[in-house]
Amino acid sequence: MVDLRSDTVTRPTPGMREAMAAAEVGDDVFGDDPSVNALEEHVAALFGHEAALFAPTGTMANQIALQLLVPPGGELLAGADAHVVTYELGGAAVLGGISSRTWPSDGAALDVDRIADMIRPAGFPSVPTAAIAVEQTHNLGGGGVIPLATLRDLRAVADERGVALHCDGARIWHAHVADGVPLAGYGALFDTLAVCLSKGLGAPVGSLVVGSRERIARARVIRKRMGGGMRQAGLLAAAGRYALDHHLQRLAEDHTRARRLAEGLAPLGVVDPARVRTNLVPLDLTKAPLDATELAAEAARRGVLIAAMLPRLARLVVHLDVDDDGIDEAISVLSVLLS
Amino acid sequence: MVDLRSDTVTRPTPGMREAMAAAEVGDDVFGDDPSVNALEEHVAALFGHEAALFAPTGTMANQIALQLLVPPGGELLAGADAHVVTYELGGAAVLGGISSRTWPSDGAALDVDRIADMIRPAGFPSVPTAAIAVEQTHNLGGGGVIPLATLRDLRAVADERGVALHCDGARIWHAHVADGVPLAGYGALFDTLAVCLSKGLGAPVGSLVVGSRERIARARVIRKRMGGGMRQAGLLAAAGRYALDHHLQRLAEDHTRARRLAEGLAPLGVVDPARVRTNLVPLDLTKAPLDATELAAEAARRGVLIAAMLPRLARLVVHLDVDDDGIDEAISVLSVLLS
Amino acid sequence: MVDLRSDTVTRPTPGMREAMAAAEVGDDVFGDDPSVNALEEHVAALFGHEAALFAPTGTMANQIALQLLVPPGGELLAGADAHVVTYELGGAAVLGGISSRTWPSDGAALDVDRIADMIRPAGFPSVPTAAIAVEQTHNLGGGGVIPLATLRDLRAVADERGVALHCDGARIWHAHVADGVPLAGYGALFDTLAVCLSKGLGAPVGSLVVGSRERIARARVIRKRMGGGMRQAGLLAAAGRYALDHHLQRLAEDHTRARRLAEGLAPLGVVDPARVRTNLVPLDLTKAPLDATELAAEAARRGVLIAAMLPRLARLVVHLDVDDDGIDEAISVLSVLLS
Amino acid sequence: MVDLRSDTVTRPTPGMREAMAAAEVGDDVFGDDPSVNALEEHVAALFGHEAALFAPTGTMANQIALQLLVPPGGELLAGADAHVVTYELGGAAVLGGISSRTWPSDGAALDVDRIADMIRPAGFPSVPTAAIAVEQTHNLGGGGVIPLATLRDLRAVADERGVALHCDGARIWHAHVADGVPLAGYGALFDTLAVCLSKGLGAPVGSLVVGSRERIARARVIRKRMGGGMRQAGLLAAAGRYALDHHLQRLAEDHTRARRLAEGLAPLGVVDPARVRTNLVPLDLTKAPLDATELAAEAARRGVLIAAMLPRLARLVVHLDVDDDGIDEAISVLSVLLS
Repeated sequence: MVDLRSDTVTRPTPGMREAMAAAEVGDDVFGDDPSVNALEEHVAALFGHEAALFAPTGTMANQIALQLLVPPGGELLAGADAHVVTYELGGAAVLGGISSRTWPSDGAALDVDRIADMIRPAGFPSVPTAAIAVEQTHNLGGGGVIPLATLRDLRAVADERGVALHCDGARIWHAHVADGVPLAGYGALFDTLAVCLSKGLGAPVGSLVVGSRERIARARVIRKRMGGGMRQAGLLAAAGRYALDHHLQRLAEDHTRARRLAEGLAPLGVVDPARVRTNLVPLDLTKAPLDATELAAEAARRGVLIAAMLPRLARLVVHLDVDDDGIDEAISVLSVLLS
Repeated sequence: MVDLRSDTVTRPTPGMREAMAAAEVGDDVFGDDPSVNALEEHVAALFGHEAALFAPTGTMANQIALQLLVPPGGELLAGADAHVVTYELGGAAVLGGISSRTWPSDGAALDVDRIADMIRPAGFPSVPTAAIAVEQTHNLGGGGVIPLATLRDLRAVADERGVALHCDGARIWHAHVADGVPLAGYGALFDTLAVCLSKGLGAPVGSLVVGSRERIARARVIRKRMGGGMRQAGLLAAAGRYALDHHLQRLAEDHTRARRLAEGLAPLGVVDPARVRTNLVPLDLTKAPLDATELAAEAARRGVLIAAMLPRLARLVVHLDVDDDGIDEAISVLSVLLS
Repeated sequence: MVDLRSDTVTRPTPGMREAMAAAEVGDDVFGDDPSVNALEEHVAALFGHEAALFAPTGTMANQIALQLLVPPGGELLAGADAHVVTYELGGAAVLGGISSRTWPSDGAALDVDRIADMIRPAGFPSVPTAAIAVEQTHNLGGGGVIPLATLRDLRAVADERGVALHCDGARIWHAHVADGVPLAGYGALFDTLAVCLSKGLGAPVGSLVVGSRERIARARVIRKRMGGGMRQAGLLAAAGRYALDHHLQRLAEDHTRARRLAEGLAPLGVVDPARVRTNLVPLDLTKAPLDATELAAEAARRGVLIAAMLPRLARLVVHLDVDDDGIDEAISVLSVLLS
Repeated sequence: MVDLRSDTVTRPTPGMREAMAAAEVGDDVFGDDPSVNALEEHVAALFGHEAALFAPTGTMANQIALQLLVPPGGELLAGADAHVVTYELGGAAVLGGISSRTWPSDGAALDVDRIADMIRPAGFPSVPTAAIAVEQTHNLGGGGVIPLATLRDLRAVADERGVALHCDGARIWHAHVADGVPLAGYGALFDTLAVCLSKGLGAPVGSLVVGSRERIARARVIRKRMGGGMRQAGLLAAAGRYALDHHLQRLAEDHTRARRLAEGLAPLGVVDPARVRTNLVPLDLTKAPLDATELAAEAARRGVLIAAMLPRLARLVVHLDVDDDGIDEAISVLSVLLS
């Protein structure tokens, strides 16, 4: 099987399992887990922030951050295809009473002026815009990387209008590797970031919220209320630390393979290789003989697993557990199905 | 003073006060208020629906309807400038756990294909789109009227995709008068409507949610929870009935005056009279010497009250309490300020 | 018909209707309604507080106050039979994310030490107690009056523990008349009060939240979100003011009639007249031949309307529209049914 | 250090770490993790239910179950000292809009008649009681075990009144060992159970919600929204399975040690050994020379960690990592401090 459904499917490597087996642990609800504490400090430092908090999932890390930035009845602005408004099952509204308005899906190609125009001033009677969320890299945007200059423009707008900025950085590691921007360069532009260890980095479980000391103290309470206060979480933190130490720079290999995969499929007219910047390869099936669900089913029968994202959008994800042979196999199977 | 801030400022006429003074009343929480019951039946019939429920405000009527159509964690689609996501203080998220995504502000010029593209299918893991809300006439869209054909296209999309349709019909009366579409013609296209008696119709207080018998039974519980279960509300219902009986067709006069007001201000380059279809006259101040807040303040000092909606958007509203002299006065004052 | 279901069924008197017909009004959302403004100032002054806000119902007034005092995730303590946790359809949890714990139903006989023992300190990880709500007079407690000394003890506990106090004062007027405690005497003991004009006072619609200027400013936003921002509400405020000016002291008559009603029914063993302090007469049907629903149905067939509160608890309420003959009739009908 | 603060502080044993290192894993969000699937089936079978769902914490397992049983605006009844209303930071209200009323703290000594009296029938206008939650064993109730007969009576009441029953079974394992009731015997009495692997059983992380297939399918959506959908969670599930297989019957040793600890402290008048049924030893400090916070601080300086639960209530918890020497040490240190 070549599993290209998501980079969340990676299995821990022997080295990572060894790191877990050796991890020193304690009760993290009491703040006693040395591996968790070390990971939190390390990730905060990577992004140049004061503090970080370990959470069981990227969804929880995002939702904690949104609750930190937006009070009940306040407004979040995000892209219509953002993970926070698409794949988190309405959490912002249900858990945080957060109202949202969206700009049209444009993936990583943010139109900062358009976002600025959407901001509503604080003050009765309109819903005050409290935060803007962007996604780096952008999942439904095909793994696109928002340019640093664009993010700087957005930060300037946010500062001028008194609005907070959140980065859903589940795959910010890929942006860092693709564009060479230091993680702290991204960190400096956001009030909070949510970063994920269990996607491309290959850890089994775990994400972090990154922010100021004051915000992370509040995050601890929100995490507990949401049911994310785990005990000997150091076992997971150790895997995460191993992933950061050993799997970050190797993401470049995934990017290379993804590009090669796109080039192999380009003749079928479903993907433009020039737009494949990181480890995601979106397939536009608008003119294809099968829709996304059919293609996924047929490919699965031939040993290649892919994700149907929307009726005419499929997604291939390259990761730690996909090697060159897997890429060849995927090209071969999908070429037959899409011809 | 010429008060053009909103059609909500109208004061009850002597006839309306008389109707209130004579109203038969009872305790509406027990279902005993004959005037409320009669109004609910009357309005339901006007729109060709089974039932209706009286509510203290248009905001409550909208929010009750949204809670009827969208479960917690479900999704509402609306325009980015819709009243339900702009001027109701995040109620959908706070009170109903309703997640929202928006299409770009386009007032009454709905792009049905774009809306269709935004619908997410029910089913894990994306947020299922449960309802679409449109606004007839459109407040921030300058009182524009969505054409009946567009609404029919939207209904077809909604049926095909299994999504409910809500009409924020606070000013649907003006659409009815401007386009000559029967109220039941609109009613047939929506699962729920919220209609308001205290805007152009001139009643002091009151709105209604219109829908099926089953939905309105549930609405009664939601209204009580939101604090909208009033007692001898028949006094207000009587005013509302009077407004429906006496002030509906006269909205045509407001439309004529609004057009005249727009024509008087057209030379200043702030409004296109051809786009003024009902009783709202939006002023685009992008190139004006004053912004909306400044203009409102200066005009107020000269006896003309207008509303600053956005930094560069002001709004003039013609209603029952504005006569021809008021229109002349407004043209004269604003012409000086905007020259 | 003798309607003893509730004091909410009172119909406006001719004098009250006249006051409404003559009321000066404006758009209260803009703060322009002179009758509303005057009523708010008057009621605030009655209770010795800085400000007050008009709301369409007692439920909304209570819920606004709770949201002012308790943040989402904070805790409210109340009696298990309190209106706020029994008859407001879960509003505190749904609208405000307010967690609640209750002490056993004891009506007006508060056990202050027991309440004190329930308070949880602020601070992770337990839910911090933010407010305590009491009900004066107590509805399910048979219209009982909490003694002023008890309320003072409770205030002392609240101060010592840093917890806010709310009074659900829907019928605080009856406590004032029964015990002779000045309204400002009650006002001094609470952070917020919700008081109702449409129960014993006989106004058709309307309640007020009373509190500090800062809290009432926030209350305005919450009211708008909940859909309680009415327009020419001065018509209702005028009725409310009339009720305060003309129907407050006459509550003593209702109390006298209620006591007479209780004495008339005492031989049946369903009520102890000594416990009837205000206008409510609870009937304990534990040993009666009919349960509350049956009794209410049979009495209705004989022209006497009463309320079934719990399976074995019925309630008779004396009010403005019940005279001595009504009392006689009720005694006669119920005596037959309960013999 | 002898750490008696909680049984959550246990560290994974070498055998457990080995089981984790060898665990087969997959992406559990896709349902692909064999270790998670096996654990869920195993635990469901233990309790005689159709299905179970793995969750990162006991708080999340409880909150998921409550959301399954109680709709927004519905009511939960629980003891005033229950974990679900005391230590979960208002989650039921914030996340689920769940209203709660409580009976007075009585630990494991449930008064079923009193609970029955609190149930409100479904139907306007009172808040409908949807579920009752009990805690087995009872944390703030000193590890007490609710007798099976009491639970059967409660089930009969629940059935008669149409109300669901939830068991917060974080330490149900201890009840099973102490009273010899089969787990399926408990399972048969509840609609949902939340059970925890990371307390006395000694697993590092993980709890499960147990219930019907239909409920657990909905639970999966709720878990995702709350941020509990982990990826290669099989690493944790393997530890949990190891704990179930190796650490369940040994809880009897903890119970014996807890009793010995209580007997050692009995002369100080702070605990009645006869009431120590499981692994918790509550210390009633009402008459002690130090309050709970002081005692915890002083004991910590002498190498014994205990938990201050309430101002005058401390708690000692015996678990996997506490041996006979630890018990002796604790008796010795606390005896000095409390003399």
